[in-house]
Amino acid sequence: MVAADIDPFAVMNVVGLLAFAVAGALKAADAGLDVFGVSVLGIVTALGGGTTRDILVDKLPASLAAMWDMSVAVVGVGLAIVLIRSMGGRVRDHPAFLTSDAIGLSAFAATGALVGVDAGVTPFGIVILATITAVGGGSIADILIGRVPVVLRDDFYATPAVVGGLAFLVARGLGAPTGIPSGLCAALVFTVRMLALKYEWRLPQV
Amino acid sequence: MVAADIDPFAVMNVVGLLAFAVAGALKAADAGLDVFGVSVLGIVTALGGGTTRDILVDKLPASLAAMWDMSVAVVGVGLAIVLIRSMGGRVRDHPAFLTSDAIGLSAFAATGALVGVDAGVTPFGIVILATITAVGGGSIADILIGRVPVVLRDDFYATPAVVGGLAFLVARGLGAPTGIPSGLCAALVFTVRMLALKYEWRLPQV
Amino acid sequence: MVAADIDPFAVMNVVGLLAFAVAGALKAADAGLDVFGVSVLGIVTALGGGTTRDILVDKLPASLAAMWDMSVAVVGVGLAIVLIRSMGGRVRDHPAFLTSDAIGLSAFAATGALVGVDAGVTPFGIVILATITAVGGGSIADILIGRVPVVLRDDFYATPAVVGGLAFLVARGLGAPTGIPSGLCAALVFTVRMLALKYEWRLPQV
Repeated sequence: MVAADIDPFAVMNVVGLLAFAVAGALKAADAGLDVFGVSVLGIVTALGGGTTRDILVDKLPASLAAMWDMSVAVVGVGLAIVLIRSMGGRVRDHPAFLTSDAIGLSAFAATGALVGVDAGVTPFGIVILATITAVGGGSIADILIGRVPVVLRDDFYATPAVVGGLAFLVARGLGAPTGIPSGLCAALVFTVRMLALKYEWRLPQV
Repeated sequence: MVAADIDPFAVMNVVGLLAFAVAGALKAADAGLDVFGVSVLGIVTALGGGTTRDILVDKLPASLAAMWDMSVAVVGVGLAIVLIRSMGGRVRDHPAFLTSDAIGLSAFAATGALVGVDAGVTPFGIVILATITAVGGGSIADILIGRVPVVLRDDFYATPAVVGGLAFLVARGLGAPTGIPSGLCAALVFTVRMLALKYEWRLPQV
Repeated sequence: MVAADIDPFAVMNVVGLLAFAVAGALKAADAGLDVFGVSVLGIVTALGGGTTRDILVDKLPASLAAMWDMSVAVVGVGLAIVLIRSMGGRVRDHPAFLTSDAIGLSAFAATGALVGVDAGVTPFGIVILATITAVGGGSIADILIGRVPVVLRDDFYATPAVVGGLAFLVARGLGAPTGIPSGLCAALVFTVRMLALKYEWRLPQV
């Protein structure tokens, strides 16, 4: 589906920004923030993971270097505000929140892996960068509203990103053409995350 | 007032460091911390925004590269300790706290815009950098003492910085001489912030 | 004890990573997290200070650039899980926690000072970098589990690191051979921290 002449990073980045802006705004609404807080938290959730990723590899963050990222985040917040008005009831367990959050997690894990390759980090580093990029925005948002980040509360929030990062490495090691490793990574993160939510997976107690 | 041969960044930086060190130390006293906690929080509030700004644009933070920043922050904490002893009552709504915080917000928004220009970020990026630099130190301080950051609780904490960042862009676009865009930015942030406090402005509910 | 041909940074780094992984994992167990949360918090505590240090001086963080750091952190978490099973009772005041935390504090203060020298920061900057590297991982971990960081609650958590950073500067200024300044720094941080715990030192109230 991803043609060879489409930049996989650009696709994953836009999808992730949009999905996390929606998820962050919904989370803020769930926490009882007003429209201003909803907007700030949506933008922070959308831009947080990628900005952390770029700081780690010593790049000027895309959120500052391009108009694109901020614009997409603002559109996502707008979408979320429309959604919030039509939702009613608790947002936290609503499929719209859980799905957009899972999409953001998946797409951003892929951008983290791609940036890690460009920056020449180790294989371990690629998995770490995929994971931090995926969970970073949501964790910053959780800390801002005074919650223990979901990454600590839910075994299968960071775990899908780790699995996706490993799949990226394997596909790349096998010489898969451009776009395949990141597409596989995102698809796997999304699948594992949604299955974990549906079947309430927990890691084994030791 | 700002002569062409005075470095606008240096002026804004010293004013902001001093004001935020006072505001941060007062906030810590309000939260019941002892003199040590008051000192740490004053220094973190003073250095936090600028350090975040410098990390974002890939510069060695001024807090590490120069003796100046840390020294000014320590002086600000000293001032605050004298103030705290003479204040009594709740610090949070005291004019000394609200004014020093507004001064810090104003001066640091200007430094963020100036650093953004030097780093070659987009116009959007300049507004974002002005805003993050302005609200960064106070937000880190709030998180450290376990409060939801004021940037999420008060509609007109980040908003004045956004307005100031936009004014900076306009003045610069019109070719205003050195010092004018940053001076205008700071004056506008301060005015909007103080008016918002006085008249308890809120953004319209959507 | 430290021979001239051993890299002082490498020694201090491994000791600090291992000790902080143990301390972070024990802290997570004390906070009631499951094995997954224990692992994440152990790794974050181990890698947090050094990653912050490297970001501040514009280096690709060792946690991404080398397999070593992450591997040592994982070993430390494994050790902690064995410890937790044999401990019972409250972890927070257990000597195993307090000692491993003090060792991490000491070793990471030394790495911060060494990196500061390489990055050409000011003497003030070296003390700040030693302190931030020492307290960074534990503070991030505290914020993640919703606690006010120990650096704000305990006068003698950051203070030993400041003392160690100053000792590093003096030893270096006196021309001590490689390894001595960082060894002295770590020994002093550890001694001051353990004495402060034993005798419940507080800074004088002003």
